Amino acid sequence: MNASKRLDQLLIQIAEIGRDQATGGYNRFAYTETDLQLRAFFAQTAEELGLEVGVDAANNQWAWWGDPDSDPEHNLVLGSHLDSVPSGGAYDGPLGVLSALSAIAELIGDGFQPRSAVGVANFIDEEGARFGVACLGSRVLTGETTYERLSQLIDYDGTPFVDVVSATGVDPTSLGRDDRALSRIGSFIELHIEQGHQLIDLDAPIGLASFIWPHGRWSTTLTGTPNHAGTTRLDERDDPLQRAARFVLELGELAIARDAIATCGKIVVEPNAVNAIAATVRLWIDARADSPDRLAHLATDIATLAEGLGGRLVNESLTSMTAFSASLNESLGSLLENPPVISTGAGHDAGILASHGIPTAMLFVRNPTGVSHSPAERANREDMVAGVDALISVIRGLAS
Amino acid sequence: MNASKRLDQLLIQIAEIGRDQATGGYNRFAYTETDLQLRAFFAQTAEELGLEVGVDAANNQWAWWGDPDSDPEHNLVLGSHLDSVPSGGAYDGPLGVLSALSAIAELIGDGFQPRSAVGVANFIDEEGARFGVACLGSRVLTGETTYERLSQLIDYDGTPFVDVVSATGVDPTSLGRDDRALSRIGSFIELHIEQGHQLIDLDAPIGLASFIWPHGRWSTTLTGTPNHAGTTRLDERDDPLQRAARFVLELGELAIARDAIATCGKIVVEPNAVNAIAATVRLWIDARADSPDRLAHLATDIATLAEGLGGRLVNESLTSMTAFSASLNESLGSLLENPPVISTGAGHDAGILASHGIPTAMLFVRNPTGVSHSPAERANREDMVAGVDALISVIRGLAS
Repeated sequence: MNASKRLDQLLIQIAEIGRDQATGGYNRFAYTETDLQLRAFFAQTAEELGLEVGVDAANNQWAWWGDPDSDPEHNLVLGSHLDSVPSGGAYDGPLGVLSALSAIAELIGDGFQPRSAVGVANFIDEEGARFGVACLGSRVLTGETTYERLSQLIDYDGTPFVDVVSATGVDPTSLGRDDRALSRIGSFIELHIEQGHQLIDLDAPIGLASFIWPHGRWSTTLTGTPNHAGTTRLDERDDPLQRAARFVLELGELAIARDAIATCGKIVVEPNAVNAIAATVRLWIDARADSPDRLAHLATDIATLAEGLGGRLVNESLTSMTAFSASLNESLGSLLENPPVISTGAGHDAGILASHGIPTAMLFVRNPTGVSHSPAERANREDMVAGVDALISVIRGLAS
Repeated sequence: MNASKRLDQLLIQIAEIGRDQATGGYNRFAYTETDLQLRAFFAQTAEELGLEVGVDAANNQWAWWGDPDSDPEHNLVLGSHLDSVPSGGAYDGPLGVLSALSAIAELIGDGFQPRSAVGVANFIDEEGARFGVACLGSRVLTGETTYERLSQLIDYDGTPFVDVVSATGVDPTSLGRDDRALSRIGSFIELHIEQGHQLIDLDAPIGLASFIWPHGRWSTTLTGTPNHAGTTRLDERDDPLQRAARFVLELGELAIARDAIATCGKIVVEPNAVNAIAATVRLWIDARADSPDRLAHLATDIATLAEGLGGRLVNESLTSMTAFSASLNESLGSLLENPPVISTGAGHDAGILASHGIPTAMLFVRNPTGVSHSPAERANREDMVAGVDALISVIRGLAS
């Protein structure tokens, strides 16, 4: 079986795991039954290829072709993640993991012998859909997120992180930075579906990443006076949902004025009853810009907006601008006939590893809809084949 | 023990049942463990007074003082409900049930012998917080809501009504209109905390109800294009939350223009993820006016607004203007030294029974905050005592 057929087959094998029949999208959240199924699939597929499978102290999965400890500085690691946002697409994450496994399978079939070990990582909880922290697996691995912080996290149902993890048979107190696993990542290359349409505009099936825009998450809570919806005159109300509506509308204008991006995609209304004026409305804001300065200015604008509406803007996470390895990009450019180099607004595990000082690159596969984090996310077969072929060339070029 | 002490004691007995420690409000939803606890409390309290306790075919609870079948046309029924909206107050519902039990206890202690039977009803699921249909118990009792409709209902967690009911040991297929129970309601008087401040303005501890404003519930779903929040330019987005915000702001203006009331208190965003542009936003609208015409005009305005934003307004329930019994109000007026008569924007089981042709009245107890459906709902002790004393006078006057 050639690599592209194998990729097809692997995509089909997980096509029904975590699928939401109503939307056609995927709900694959960390530590759920769905996630455990995907992890079992990863382990079994890698073992069938003869790879050595294990987990690190952050509970990320690793599959090694060759001994990762013989010449760790020259190890080449590929991979991505298998979890999704709510109702996410089929490719954001899985394409990187499955393309890596397919490329290795083809090279094994060809009798290729890598000089240094080649690894595939499946990072846990990249999307942050369950506990609200994106790239949790790589953040714990690098020590950016400590056990102390993990022990404070609760999931979308209010269940503590530690209870969620314990229920899967993992001791949560064992989680933390893993220097041995880090030392094995000589360099890391994450293949990923493009989240945008720069490659469409450039008419290119694949591209390399220059840097990730600095980005952050904030939230604000607007409090009003809850009351009966049928018996309270409109001029006597203090309805926080009215203020929340103004916030949402003005947020977009602030971002446009700064030539940046800001999104409110999550709102929680309490008590959220048809016949009760809201007591509180909590809004989450995702903002990004092509420079740290611009993002800081935008955050100040948003804080002023929130204050004017009776709220206080709280920063929940901030990720600085992440540049990928210039020398690795140079090697990849020459191996892959110089694909275009594009910047991205999305965060990735590759960004966390790059920030940690590991030589890191990203390889994007064209997305014909330009849409991501949605069931409308797509990848054409020829472009996916170009992605796998690129990984094959990279392994041949860098691990020999 | 006199009636007001007994009322204090009963309020204390249920003070911790279903209490949300964070807000101080109550979550008492139909068929939950909390609701079953309240129903057990109702049955036990009534039995201790020597009343005959049972349920009707709608699963409402009844407690009878005297034989309800000896002269059913002259039976006097008091009562209200024990369930709540999310984070509701302590009095909306329970005050009517507990005041009735306290009044009967006092009359029993006094050796009073009612000529006709006196009943206390605890209607199930008045607030509609669990299945989205208000006054479900009285609607099923009167046949306004049939088993066919019940079998289509799902609760806030997506669990079908029939499964919820089965889990409590009740056969859902046995639920439906109950003519025998209806025939026993000679007249019905619901005591209720006022949801507004007309009695404050009138400086009166209690009041009678003239009519309930016509009111309804509608919903609309706005659909957009879900996408990654970090990689989609603002001018390329179709974000339904932006349109939802405009809807919320313009809804209030439409209601003011019609001199009516409209509220959006419930919004559900999908997927509701920080880093995903919303796919759909569903909004619920509660609207009320002092005449059916005015409400119809307002509903048309709201439908036009929804259509302009890409949605379709769907009516979920409509309750016409309900007038209470003029002759019963006349009797109560003379028994109670003519308390003020006020209209109300809130629906009640009493309204359902009145629409069904049962002579029905309501007795409001002043609410010093004017706030309801909220932990801020209050009742002063003297006003609650005035309420119980009024029920005692009514029983003495009408059941002898």
